[in-house]
Amino acid sequence: MRLAEVGEFGLIGRIARRVAPGAGVMVGIGDDAAAVEPTGGCVTLVTSDMLVEGVHFDLSLCDPATLGRKALAVNLSDIAAMGGKPRHFLLSLAIPPALPVEFLDSMVTGLLERAEEFGVVLIGGDTCSTRDGLVVSVTVMGEQLPGLVVRRGGAAAGDLVFVTGTLGDSALGFELLKMGEREGEAVERHLDPAPRVREGMALACAGLPSAMIDVSDGLLADLSHILDLSGVGARLELARLPLSRSFRLKAPAVAPDPFTFPLAGGEDYELLFTAPAAREEAVRELFRELGSGVSLIGEITSDRRLVVLDDDGSECRIEAHGYNHFQGT
Amino acid sequence: MRLAEVGEFGLIGRIARRVAPGAGVMVGIGDDAAAVEPTGGCVTLVTSDMLVEGVHFDLSLCDPATLGRKALAVNLSDIAAMGGKPRHFLLSLAIPPALPVEFLDSMVTGLLERAEEFGVVLIGGDTCSTRDGLVVSVTVMGEQLPGLVVRRGGAAAGDLVFVTGTLGDSALGFELLKMGEREGEAVERHLDPAPRVREGMALACAGLPSAMIDVSDGLLADLSHILDLSGVGARLELARLPLSRSFRLKAPAVAPDPFTFPLAGGEDYELLFTAPAAREEAVRELFRELGSGVSLIGEITSDRRLVVLDDDGSECRIEAHGYNHFQGT
Repeated sequence: MRLAEVGEFGLIGRIARRVAPGAGVMVGIGDDAAAVEPTGGCVTLVTSDMLVEGVHFDLSLCDPATLGRKALAVNLSDIAAMGGKPRHFLLSLAIPPALPVEFLDSMVTGLLERAEEFGVVLIGGDTCSTRDGLVVSVTVMGEQLPGLVVRRGGAAAGDLVFVTGTLGDSALGFELLKMGEREGEAVERHLDPAPRVREGMALACAGLPSAMIDVSDGLLADLSHILDLSGVGARLELARLPLSRSFRLKAPAVAPDPFTFPLAGGEDYELLFTAPAAREEAVRELFRELGSGVSLIGEITSDRRLVVLDDDGSECRIEAHGYNHFQGT
Repeated sequence: MRLAEVGEFGLIGRIARRVAPGAGVMVGIGDDAAAVEPTGGCVTLVTSDMLVEGVHFDLSLCDPATLGRKALAVNLSDIAAMGGKPRHFLLSLAIPPALPVEFLDSMVTGLLERAEEFGVVLIGGDTCSTRDGLVVSVTVMGEQLPGLVVRRGGAAAGDLVFVTGTLGDSALGFELLKMGEREGEAVERHLDPAPRVREGMALACAGLPSAMIDVSDGLLADLSHILDLSGVGARLELARLPLSRSFRLKAPAVAPDPFTFPLAGGEDYELLFTAPAAREEAVRELFRELGSGVSLIGEITSDRRLVVLDDDGSECRIEAHGYNHFQGT
């Protein structure tokens, strides 16, 4: 079905009918603005991420439901990196006229699946047409007690550097996709990342991280944000980088060198955080309870340099620093 | 200067340096998410509007500063229509590589001017590249006491229908722009609309409106939203529609008929609201105090029809119903 047959308000109605009333929503879809009730004592966290066809996604490489899931997941990941509980979200779409309504229905299905999984409720947004590629902009609001919000700038010399899960899978998956693979662990990690909301909240509530960020631009680039804002440096050990079994199996045939993807590949959406050395066991215990992986990959130093040590303890030369829009354009 | 020379983080830095710390902002630009402090007892209002090059604006017809002003204004208008006080906003940009950095600097200047004027603070957003036209997505958060939030669905039979300011100017301005005019009242109304934030808040705080919406799609279309959600109808009188002096002067040479623009032209960003007949004098008194115009244009009826009466009391045939994305595409 073509969008022109449904119309703007028809499309909004199609979406609104699928959204159940949610906790804390006083006014949802269908008014000039949404109205939500903040939880007493909490600050409101808010983040927005835009996915652009031809830049962030290629409609020949992803199905619409997975695109919807990812559009929400990348935003949930930002709330997770603050240690927050995501609650509500807005969805704005700029839609090319030729895009079938069925595509949008599937995309919304994926998005609402992810939303239900994480207990977040769609409360509004915007729909309009575009002459060019599809643009999906999601804004997620969450909350946390002000004393538990985790920022990027709190790392101190001597703190340990941890990362959840495994690194490099998404970048590997992207390469495999371009080579024609359509399934497998790495491809799924790239197309359908799982935000670490549970881990971020548990860390924040336990008061463990001194600084936290999600790995979206690549480990080195994202760690650099923590270092810059904290006024410190770090020493990472290559041998400690967590690599998945499928990564070890598949990467050698694809990756330029074994550590480019884990160090500089983007979109892993793992949480990278620092914690005082005295809390190492508490961090490990927390992740045992969560049944989730965490790795100690280095430590924070006072000299403001980011150093990566090879297996033999020698310093690696770092060139690739992760993804940066606009460069190379 | 080209964007590639500045880079994504350079661009974010350029914007962030121009934003002063604002009230209620615990974490602003430069972390995974922003954190803001809700005012005790208030609900948070949130709205998002996307402007797409080639659909909402034409870079040959508007300067970048005015585009920035409008991108914020249309969102402020939505908060105004809820009776809310706007406080914080996010700015997301998808930027074509060829767009000069100076264009973005000017756009941000316009946007921050409008922000300062209305006391709202930029707290975050997203920047990315696009292969196609510029996309500007703004999300504004505001607040109001829950008992004072004004919705679309509260109009009751016997209520009076009011509108602020004048109607049709923006649609006239758009036509004049396409004919080559670059200045004048109507053109300015189209390019640089003034959101009725002060009026919306004053109305809400006085508890006067039973329903309210901003006129963005056109008077008839926006009134229809109120009627549909309230389960009522309305009778409007053509002779009561507020037309500006410049509209009366310029429209005859341009408009298809005298009332198409006031009834069906979009983007006036006036407030359309209903209030009990017993509060008519209170409404007029409020607007006298504000030094701002308001017109009584009709009344709410119980029969669920929207009727427009001509000067002689006969019923007009209504065809145009305002702007709807996707139709006619």
